Amino acid sequence: MSGRIFPTAQDAENAFYEALERCDLDGMMAVWAEDEDIVCVHPGGARLNGQDQVRESWARIFAAGPRARIHTTQQVAISGMMLAVHSVHENFTIQGQARGDAPQPVPVVATNVYLRTAAGWRLIVHHASPAPAATTQPTPRESPPKLLH
Amino acid sequence: MSGRIFPTAQDAENAFYEALERCDLDGMMAVWAEDEDIVCVHPGGARLNGQDQVRESWARIFAAGPRARIHTTQQVAISGMMLAVHSVHENFTIQGQARGDAPQPVPVVATNVYLRTAAGWRLIVHHASPAPAATTQPTPRESPPKLLH
Repeated sequence: MSGRIFPTAQDAENAFYEALERCDLDGMMAVWAEDEDIVCVHPGGARLNGQDQVRESWARIFAAGPRARIHTTQQVAISGMMLAVHSVHENFTIQGQARGDAPQPVPVVATNVYLRTAAGWRLIVHHASPAPAATTQPTPRESPPKLLH
Repeated sequence: MSGRIFPTAQDAENAFYEALERCDLDGMMAVWAEDEDIVCVHPGGARLNGQDQVRESWARIFAAGPRARIHTTQQVAISGMMLAVHSVHENFTIQGQARGDAPQPVPVVATNVYLRTAAGWRLIVHHASPAPAATTQPTPRESPPKLLH
């Protein structure tokens, strides 16, 4: 799986959320940089650092199998030559729930940092935390990435 | 205050935590990029976006005045030409508490993204969330920043 090339940070981000939705551990780890400095913070969790901690955490999360659809909104993107930063809201829709069932989960706010490597863009930092639903500010725009140079 | 120049991302980070410790709103806002794409997530909070939301949030936090010392540990730094990403643990020591009083707060894990501007390095993303104390992984190294080029 490590042979997969993401020509842009957005391609890597799309693959990240596809792997998350499908609970695909190999697909997930193929998005991450092959680097011991990778950092992952799951919502409410401790900071995980390095390939082993990050892989192990996703294996645990994925053990129950796919249960939610995820779509991201309100992206703010800042892109340099070597690093790109995307701030997004992750919106989870629990599958199998009929309308009127328990409320859907609050959105998660995520900061995703991508690194341009010899093998394309890869994720190097994923920091996610629950956003209190009541105070979430709607951002009207879906602006194109800001290119620094 | 906007004339202050930070020659490195680390200088901007030092100024950020000094301003946070002193509850210095002008000093805090001087660290941020003069950009509407700035993003700030306080521990447990919603994503704030743009100068007005970010300034207002710090004004509210600082209203009670300085109450804690802060030191950062376990920095992981990834630096490009235009963007630098620092992942740190923020350790708060509540002032006026004698030893044996209520336990100190859990560390906060923060992802700080700095942008090289014409006026030096400035903060563009600050994402902070509480790290559960029991599962915090000690990271033995305080590695020097990884320079991408």
